[in-house]
Amino acid sequence: MLNFNYSIPTKIFFGKGQISVLPDQIQKYGSKILLVYGGGSIKRNGLYDDIVNKLKENSIDFWELSGVEPNPRITTVRKGVEICRENKIDLVLAVGGGSSIDCAKVVAAGYFYEGDTWDVVKNPSKISKVLPIASVLTLAATGSEMDVFAVITNMDTNEKLGTGHEDMVPRFSILDPTYTFTVPANQTAAGTADIMSHIFETYFSSTKGAFLQDRMAEALLKTCINYGKKAIDEPENYEARANLMWASSLAINGLLGYGKHKNWCVHPMEHELSAYYDITHGVGLAILTPYWMKYILDDSTVDKFVEFGINVWGIDSNKDKYDVANTAINRTREYFDLLGIPSKLSEVGIDEDKLEKMAKQAVRKGKIGSLKPIDDKDVLNIFKAAL
Amino acid sequence: MLNFNYSIPTKIFFGKGQISVLPDQIQKYGSKILLVYGGGSIKRNGLYDDIVNKLKENSIDFWELSGVEPNPRITTVRKGVEICRENKIDLVLAVGGGSSIDCAKVVAAGYFYEGDTWDVVKNPSKISKVLPIASVLTLAATGSEMDVFAVITNMDTNEKLGTGHEDMVPRFSILDPTYTFTVPANQTAAGTADIMSHIFETYFSSTKGAFLQDRMAEALLKTCINYGKKAIDEPENYEARANLMWASSLAINGLLGYGKHKNWCVHPMEHELSAYYDITHGVGLAILTPYWMKYILDDSTVDKFVEFGINVWGIDSNKDKYDVANTAINRTREYFDLLGIPSKLSEVGIDEDKLEKMAKQAVRKGKIGSLKPIDDKDVLNIFKAAL
Repeated sequence: MLNFNYSIPTKIFFGKGQISVLPDQIQKYGSKILLVYGGGSIKRNGLYDDIVNKLKENSIDFWELSGVEPNPRITTVRKGVEICRENKIDLVLAVGGGSSIDCAKVVAAGYFYEGDTWDVVKNPSKISKVLPIASVLTLAATGSEMDVFAVITNMDTNEKLGTGHEDMVPRFSILDPTYTFTVPANQTAAGTADIMSHIFETYFSSTKGAFLQDRMAEALLKTCINYGKKAIDEPENYEARANLMWASSLAINGLLGYGKHKNWCVHPMEHELSAYYDITHGVGLAILTPYWMKYILDDSTVDKFVEFGINVWGIDSNKDKYDVANTAINRTREYFDLLGIPSKLSEVGIDEDKLEKMAKQAVRKGKIGSLKPIDDKDVLNIFKAAL
Repeated sequence: MLNFNYSIPTKIFFGKGQISVLPDQIQKYGSKILLVYGGGSIKRNGLYDDIVNKLKENSIDFWELSGVEPNPRITTVRKGVEICRENKIDLVLAVGGGSSIDCAKVVAAGYFYEGDTWDVVKNPSKISKVLPIASVLTLAATGSEMDVFAVITNMDTNEKLGTGHEDMVPRFSILDPTYTFTVPANQTAAGTADIMSHIFETYFSSTKGAFLQDRMAEALLKTCINYGKKAIDEPENYEARANLMWASSLAINGLLGYGKHKNWCVHPMEHELSAYYDITHGVGLAILTPYWMKYILDDSTVDKFVEFGINVWGIDSNKDKYDVANTAINRTREYFDLLGIPSKLSEVGIDEDKLEKMAKQAVRKGKIGSLKPIDDKDVLNIFKAAL
């Protein structure tokens, strides 16, 4: 186990009806907030009205940044920064999924930065101070409600980049599973795949001896596997939605990664896909994951896949090592099939055209992956296999 | 899953050499500290000198409260409160295991309370303000380094009571597994049993549908089982010590209990044993646990024991339910045997004399236990079976 510094300060208000704490929690930081949200879903399901009424009743002034894109764009972030500056905002409140929260985070970080906000995406070291951030979560997927990261897209340059700062972690997040009852099947599927991918990124690490972290990762994977399909079949199954929602936060809030070497692999590959083709992040991850697993499976990695196969998929430990490993990878893909997620890049409109360019971009900062780091040629091979 | 409010604000500095952060972290709170520790072990292994040198080098003034008992006593706590008041202490730093940390917590809570400090143990609602607390951990067991609770004994009244307040959680804790290399076998065993008991207390809950929490509990149990004996056989096995140490914190910091109904059972029973006989807490827990499990095993609880047997002990799921359940309970006791922990109360000097009195005291606040609440007659039966 590697040394680590643990800090997860976000307060979580979890469960049905927890929105009632919102005004009190906001007022710890001030009385002027920026409300950040995406399309119209929170207006359709009544959440928007509920929040606005609570703000008005408690004399909390609010401004709005709406229309945040599924892959949130720097142009939208810049608008948010302007509104915050013009109105001396005290707290940025995202209402939505990871896109709205990521957007809110970079608005909050851009507020104190004098130059163009894209700079703090490209170079997180330029972030020195951040406005308080909070969230009301409506989608179990990115874990942004409890972590320090944000991913923003610049369509002018076809860049989709991650940034982060310890003060970009939300001060509080409200997680009411009933808000996800109306999430459609395809988004529930993509969200589940996103959670699973976050777990894979830290589970398949080169660090040995982080036994506790690995068993916890398996606990979370089993949760996703147990409830992903159930949430699709029974959208208003509270236990399914609750377990997925809490798994989304714990998968990426640091808990699984503390003490382990981290170098994410499938996420940077996928970021290129959605930067160029604007596809759904979780779908891209689910397509690439099994091909990536098969590609890195060799004598140096097989034992980890055996662990995965036995502990997560319950595969017979008496079988041949490669048999267990390959079965585990197949079971993973079969689960994504069960969720109704495409299995090929061609199914989501990606052709051979930009593969080489995207492969190069994915490793722009060096090799990616911890268990078995890969370079641009490897990425290209994975892309081609997944085509 | 029940609603919950999650807040785990303690910063953890985990790993070899992390003591280097101590002066910086202290100075966030002030320059005058009270050092709270137990017997001479930290003097023998050099930790005391190391800390004192770091304090002196950084002009941090310190006073000392030493000789904290294994079951820390209110008389010692009162002394600490006096020292803090006389010297206007800024932060209370415990160096040791749960006893020192618990003592430090109640010193910090007593500081602002005008009456006798025993009042804030008997009635936590009397705690309104608490001095900042921090810890340097030297024993993997109680989890006090990352939770809000403290247990203090009053030998005059034979009371061993738990108290707690959200501000009693340490601001930071330094967890260096090498500090536990010198922990003797019997204490390593008792510490492991204590961690396992904390997990059992929340695992065997009446709440259904907290799937994620249950799988995480199993992850932690498997960690204790994998490393407890190893740490005894190879006291300087870093991975074993590291995994146990981190398990001790996560077992009780709230993570496993959020979203579940909680009503601890074996701990209140054991507290009576150590209040009257001053035995080692972890030993008392390990003795009582299998008898408690057997006692509450019936048609209403068997499914939970089956889950425990299959997921933790890997027992064949095709077997009869009661067979799986009983095998799981036996395996638990056999593991405590392997750790060298006594299996009978008579082995630790407890006879029939006070059983009835202790049984009544254990349920003074009502029935104990969540999965199957029990009363004083049940407790007496368990005590007698364990005799």
